Amino acid sequence: MALEGALTLASGATLHDVTVAYETFGTLAPARDNAVLVCHALSGDAHVAASADGDGRTRPGWWDAMVGPGLAIDTDRFFVICANVLGGCSGTTGPSSIDAASGTPWGLRFPLVTIEDMVDTQARLLDRLGIDRLAAVVGGSMGGMQALAWGTRYPHRVERVVAVATTARLSAQAIAFNEVGRQAILADPDFRDGDYYASGNPHRGLGIARMVGHITYLSDESMRAKFGRRLRDRTSRAFDFVTEFEVESYLAHQGARFVERFDANTYLYMTKAMDYFDWTTSLPTTGPCLPTFLVLSFSSDWLFTTAESLEIVRLLRERGCAVSFAEIGSPYGHDAFLLEPEGQRMFIEPFLADAGARRDERRAS
Amino acid sequence: MALEGALTLASGATLHDVTVAYETFGTLAPARDNAVLVCHALSGDAHVAASADGDGRTRPGWWDAMVGPGLAIDTDRFFVICANVLGGCSGTTGPSSIDAASGTPWGLRFPLVTIEDMVDTQARLLDRLGIDRLAAVVGGSMGGMQALAWGTRYPHRVERVVAVATTARLSAQAIAFNEVGRQAILADPDFRDGDYYASGNPHRGLGIARMVGHITYLSDESMRAKFGRRLRDRTSRAFDFVTEFEVESYLAHQGARFVERFDANTYLYMTKAMDYFDWTTSLPTTGPCLPTFLVLSFSSDWLFTTAESLEIVRLLRERGCAVSFAEIGSPYGHDAFLLEPEGQRMFIEPFLADAGARRDERRAS
Repeated sequence: MALEGALTLASGATLHDVTVAYETFGTLAPARDNAVLVCHALSGDAHVAASADGDGRTRPGWWDAMVGPGLAIDTDRFFVICANVLGGCSGTTGPSSIDAASGTPWGLRFPLVTIEDMVDTQARLLDRLGIDRLAAVVGGSMGGMQALAWGTRYPHRVERVVAVATTARLSAQAIAFNEVGRQAILADPDFRDGDYYASGNPHRGLGIARMVGHITYLSDESMRAKFGRRLRDRTSRAFDFVTEFEVESYLAHQGARFVERFDANTYLYMTKAMDYFDWTTSLPTTGPCLPTFLVLSFSSDWLFTTAESLEIVRLLRERGCAVSFAEIGSPYGHDAFLLEPEGQRMFIEPFLADAGARRDERRAS
Repeated sequence: MALEGALTLASGATLHDVTVAYETFGTLAPARDNAVLVCHALSGDAHVAASADGDGRTRPGWWDAMVGPGLAIDTDRFFVICANVLGGCSGTTGPSSIDAASGTPWGLRFPLVTIEDMVDTQARLLDRLGIDRLAAVVGGSMGGMQALAWGTRYPHRVERVVAVATTARLSAQAIAFNEVGRQAILADPDFRDGDYYASGNPHRGLGIARMVGHITYLSDESMRAKFGRRLRDRTSRAFDFVTEFEVESYLAHQGARFVERFDANTYLYMTKAMDYFDWTTSLPTTGPCLPTFLVLSFSSDWLFTTAESLEIVRLLRERGCAVSFAEIGSPYGHDAFLLEPEGQRMFIEPFLADAGARRDERRAS
């Protein structure tokens, strides 16, 4: 979808001709009041679920266990929209898009984007789709930051906010991990200051960035259970600098797979948008708190901890907002938002059903 | 000190003409029974303390707060020895040394070394110094692994073992962090397969490896207190890929300083030696347990956790060994072994005094 007019960003830069790649699932009700926006994380895209209708069920969605007919985010009931974020590399305008002014890919000339810029872009997409108000916005990790930003930036346009495994602002440690990933990309000579589209992705730097990321997505406990100190295809030490522990093999595989599908520049832009995000300063101090919030964390998530979710809850309560919170017990660390559908469903399904009930009430009145 | 004869390593490789760089502090007693070996960590060297005598107090030692006259490891009482480890880059034979056979630096042709190889090298150094038996061996982190290995490999040659902030074997997560550092070095084109001594250290890769390391040395809590989300020399976001958060500046500084003093190949060898270390299989099942052990951990150390120290304690207790344990409360994470001298002194001083008392007892009898 091509947005109309220009988009002014938090940095002050202006983007023209912004295109947004999006997918929808389910059917928009005649009253146009059953739309749920799902926001994706750093490496996600618009393909949140495999299409349920037709023969198109070829590529699995990144949240298949959560979005679909009869699932926590029920596409029999809700019209689900998922859009690739601004600055992304899966169809929405970003650093790998062609800059009309020069006829070449933007590269690092693309302006830096913020979580709020992503949310503004989604709002403009909804304008074009004729959806004034969302029944809910739902997201995990960086998607959860977008959900929080929706709640404060467009409070009149969203009834329910579900923020999973996220934070109001990154800790110094999380910024540090992002910075290591960025430095690995910037140090790769194949990066060529971001102008590598003719020569190929800087696969070594991006692969290392992804390896660092994956360590932070898993818990110590799950790594212990999954790999321990086992050697891969060996019975004794190699005494050489080869991939020999299973955990090394896993990271190498994750890195190699990632560079085939993801753009290194987008990785820089996404991590920077996360580092910049600070929702603690964006809550208005006056006026009614319109949306209601559900905040979910996972017990073994050490990237965005339960303590950080509780900070979100505290900020909302101080503002008099309605907020529910649960910590879901899981050994899977930050990745649990992708791997624990049942734990999330237990809280998200009734929270969204309640939204529906309130909507029905309003209609009846 | 040039060792006599060849050294056979765990890999089966043989090293000739091994040189060991070492420093001593204090005076060896006529009975030669007051020697304490201090083992250094990944990036350490033989210079454990500034020399107390003469005008040579120019360069601070890496454990100045712990080793010296009247300190926890009291050089008025003990004859302290610290040697750069095998594979190191501060005087002891390692990958940056000249291979006599080729007349060029070893590079990656240097055989891989283990913690046990380091300990064997230290034992050979003690042979040459005429020290048959140590009053104690003390070390933190990788130094703690060497201390543990001394206790099981040379039980008749060591009376007391002090293992601080260490582990019996690396977790999958710790191996993963090491592997990211290695991959960053290996991916740097300046690495040239380890033959970079004429062209210069691969500073980008080694710098990134050190940045990753530093994140694991600090606790989330100490990073929060030290840096938080503060920007460096700025009041607002740069909207550019520059170093702007204080934590980024800290990591960049640590990385840059490290590449000036440390050899990239040695970084590969040290991390691999740690990954390979598995002390759980080296405890003998029969015979008396001769040395006594003191195991210390720090509450906020998430690299080598208190749970991992307790595994060491459990293994020792199962074997009927005498072992004391304490968790020292500290916000400084793994680095606490360098930053909390008082907490360590409280346990190390009486533990070593007791060793002295037993020695005096024996003399009297």
